[in-house]
Amino acid sequence: MTILSNTRMVRIEWGDCDPAGIIFYPRYFEIFDASTSALFERAMGVPKIQLLKTFNFAGFPLARTHARFLRPTRFGDDVTVETKISFGHSSFTIEHRLSLKGETCVECSEKRVWVVRDVSGRLKSRLIPEAVLVKFNLPQSS
Amino acid sequence: MTILSNTRMVRIEWGDCDPAGIIFYPRYFEIFDASTSALFERAMGVPKIQLLKTFNFAGFPLARTHARFLRPTRFGDDVTVETKISFGHSSFTIEHRLSLKGETCVECSEKRVWVVRDVSGRLKSRLIPEAVLVKFNLPQSS
Amino acid sequence: MTILSNTRMVRIEWGDCDPAGIIFYPRYFEIFDASTSALFERAMGVPKIQLLKTFNFAGFPLARTHARFLRPTRFGDDVTVETKISFGHSSFTIEHRLSLKGETCVECSEKRVWVVRDVSGRLKSRLIPEAVLVKFNLPQSS
Amino acid sequence: MTILSNTRMVRIEWGDCDPAGIIFYPRYFEIFDASTSALFERAMGVPKIQLLKTFNFAGFPLARTHARFLRPTRFGDDVTVETKISFGHSSFTIEHRLSLKGETCVECSEKRVWVVRDVSGRLKSRLIPEAVLVKFNLPQSS
Repeated sequence: MTILSNTRMVRIEWGDCDPAGIIFYPRYFEIFDASTSALFERAMGVPKIQLLKTFNFAGFPLARTHARFLRPTRFGDDVTVETKISFGHSSFTIEHRLSLKGETCVECSEKRVWVVRDVSGRLKSRLIPEAVLVKFNLPQSS
Repeated sequence: MTILSNTRMVRIEWGDCDPAGIIFYPRYFEIFDASTSALFERAMGVPKIQLLKTFNFAGFPLARTHARFLRPTRFGDDVTVETKISFGHSSFTIEHRLSLKGETCVECSEKRVWVVRDVSGRLKSRLIPEAVLVKFNLPQSS
Repeated sequence: MTILSNTRMVRIEWGDCDPAGIIFYPRYFEIFDASTSALFERAMGVPKIQLLKTFNFAGFPLARTHARFLRPTRFGDDVTVETKISFGHSSFTIEHRLSLKGETCVECSEKRVWVVRDVSGRLKSRLIPEAVLVKFNLPQSS
Repeated sequence: MTILSNTRMVRIEWGDCDPAGIIFYPRYFEIFDASTSALFERAMGVPKIQLLKTFNFAGFPLARTHARFLRPTRFGDDVTVETKISFGHSSFTIEHRLSLKGETCVECSEKRVWVVRDVSGRLKSRLIPEAVLVKFNLPQSS
């Protein structure tokens, strides 16, 4: 199975942290969502907003997520987020590893669904287009 | 095992939603965190800020979370969040069920750790105090 | 000039607060945005999502906001938000007063613009519809 | 009056945007807060978390903010934030200009207060330390 990955640095900010002085954990999911977009942008060569226009898709909402929090992070920490993808037919799996100075702080696994908007405006799951898979250097199904 | 629960209503707001018009999923974890606090407040009879002063504890950070997203929610939706707790020794498990008009939208399971601040200011895991368990009508371990 | 108002209670949550233990001020603007929606919902009798469908409008983005922060609030605080509106032609002014136990904590004044989406999908300012003004018991301009 | 400034790039993310497809304006204040921290970090040579330890201060909460929103921004936009500071005695003024491709989108002016935690744990306003002013290359008051 072909897997593509992307790595980016993220600064944990004062406003991301709670009265215990550590990151408020929903902020991790904001970081992971942006990391997923960054991975697609890297592979596709255009930002997510162009994908939406080109493919008439409406995002890739989560079906499930599972995260383990091993070490807290604090404001001022510059963390590394490594993100890997593997594709199914109408969904894909994302693995994030957020680390600080080489030590894993959070591991997260997501299953996301490729969604388009049908004529009535409703969100519907759909096969991930070949034109997307090609950009990730994946073999075409035909 | 004794389990206590709490139910509250939450309005999904415009600002909780993304360009697809559905909730941006990290907002669910903000809702679940507040639901966990609300459950403790109901059992303990005081808000979390009083717990911190009384027990010198520093919150109950997550060890892990697992969520399944079954149906999207939208701004204007008044969702119901049912939250149940079961206690371990220095950790506890929380189950959230978020529903709209009786239909489950999200199921989430969390493991959280009872944490205090030691003399050096560091966060450390600690046994959940008897005085807390008593408030949840749990049998004392002695 | 006719002015309509709405008052609601909001709980300041743990996750709204920063390492100083007080609310992270951008959270106030989330509260104020939801208070503006609540005022419209009260006057119009339907939530904002129905307004968007009925009036083909695309929200009421801010033109400017001015806020004064007089007293901090903390997690566990149940604050009161009073919101008043006064209408212009294609914009309206909102005044929020957020208080705790009768003492003003934040005062905020916003100017917002009524926006529709034109055929090309762009956001454009537009006269506030008579059908909206009528619901606020305002005299019609004709 | 000596004024120091800092400029940084910020990506507007999918999760920062609302159902109208434009940024949800409270996110701007999160960006501005981080920009203020970045300016202090640049001048002081250490991140905010070190400032708190060194100066026993507890942040620089807002006294007031005034923002004008001239053009909307969207997910995928890489915006530039220029931040300038001017110091008073126990407060300072920050001016932010957020622009996209050279065009101003938001202008924001903030007054912030230097705050320490007294022996009882309460937040109190205090003169900005000379050791801070020196780092900004400001003339000492003595």
